[in-house]
Amino acid sequence: MTGHNSNDPAVGGIAADRLRSIVDRYIRLEEEKKALAADQKDILTEAASAGFDKKVLRQLIRIVLTKDKAALETEETLLDIYRRAIGVG
Amino acid sequence: MTGHNSNDPAVGGIAADRLRSIVDRYIRLEEEKKALAADQKDILTEAASAGFDKKVLRQLIRIVLTKDKAALETEETLLDIYRRAIGVG
Amino acid sequence: MTGHNSNDPAVGGIAADRLRSIVDRYIRLEEEKKALAADQKDILTEAASAGFDKKVLRQLIRIVLTKDKAALETEETLLDIYRRAIGVG
Amino acid sequence: MTGHNSNDPAVGGIAADRLRSIVDRYIRLEEEKKALAADQKDILTEAASAGFDKKVLRQLIRIVLTKDKAALETEETLLDIYRRAIGVG
Repeated sequence: MTGHNSNDPAVGGIAADRLRSIVDRYIRLEEEKKALAADQKDILTEAASAGFDKKVLRQLIRIVLTKDKAALETEETLLDIYRRAIGVG
Repeated sequence: MTGHNSNDPAVGGIAADRLRSIVDRYIRLEEEKKALAADQKDILTEAASAGFDKKVLRQLIRIVLTKDKAALETEETLLDIYRRAIGVG
Repeated sequence: MTGHNSNDPAVGGIAADRLRSIVDRYIRLEEEKKALAADQKDILTEAASAGFDKKVLRQLIRIVLTKDKAALETEETLLDIYRRAIGVG
Repeated sequence: MTGHNSNDPAVGGIAADRLRSIVDRYIRLEEEKKALAADQKDILTEAASAGFDKKVLRQLIRIVLTKDKAALETEETLLDIYRRAIGVG
């Protein structure tokens, strides 16, 4: 049976303790992630109060996070060409 | 050059007419999709006014759309076992 | 009871026929949307075989679909300023 | 000008140092989040090797994370009624 472990108290053949440990550890990490996301939100709020534009700031951050800068540059050049080709300024 | 087609007026080597046709056709389909999505929204609004719960209705629709009903049943059975194993009613 | 309609055969107090009609109509629209999405995929495949870059093409389409072109232009100008300010070419 | 701060070296009127600090802090948190997500992935991989079903495990975790258990129970009861009403086992 899935997740069966003989020396573990089982419910419906499931190693209940093992399952609970897995779920608890996963959720602890989820809560840490949520705390970090809240901190990021605070940074954007701080930036907005300093006069920066949140939407553009996110675009900037995506660019900074882009690993392959050369590929990014090629795409941007091509996008400009496509835009001019169909007259979308 | 990408999308280059000799007998097509080109901008930066791009077959401008071909690109415009591609974009126009894609966008026409996008607008049709948006119209259908608006109709779906109307159906959910109608359902809500008839007393149905929109969130649960979406869950029901997801279940009906699930191709592999046997797999769905197996998952639901397993989820029940996992829930009982860690005491999440 | 939710969705209760006295002259409709009910299951658990639910107007079953009304619910089925709602679900069927919603799903018919969902299938039409899927067909349109498949057509869009074909257009992108055609574009790629004509030498266009799919990723950049999607970016172009997003720009064309943007209603507020003035806002888009302002954002793009600001993004350039932010990029130069922190030296991200 | 957006994000202008007189005693900060400016580029296009932008407080460059302030912007860089904001971006750097945000990205440090993003990398911490990615590390936590990688740890979560490891836990699911461990769970799978112990015989648990990843997809069902995620559903279980979503249920455990649901704050309002009473609302969840109401939804599940209603979903059962809707399913029986239209004969979707």
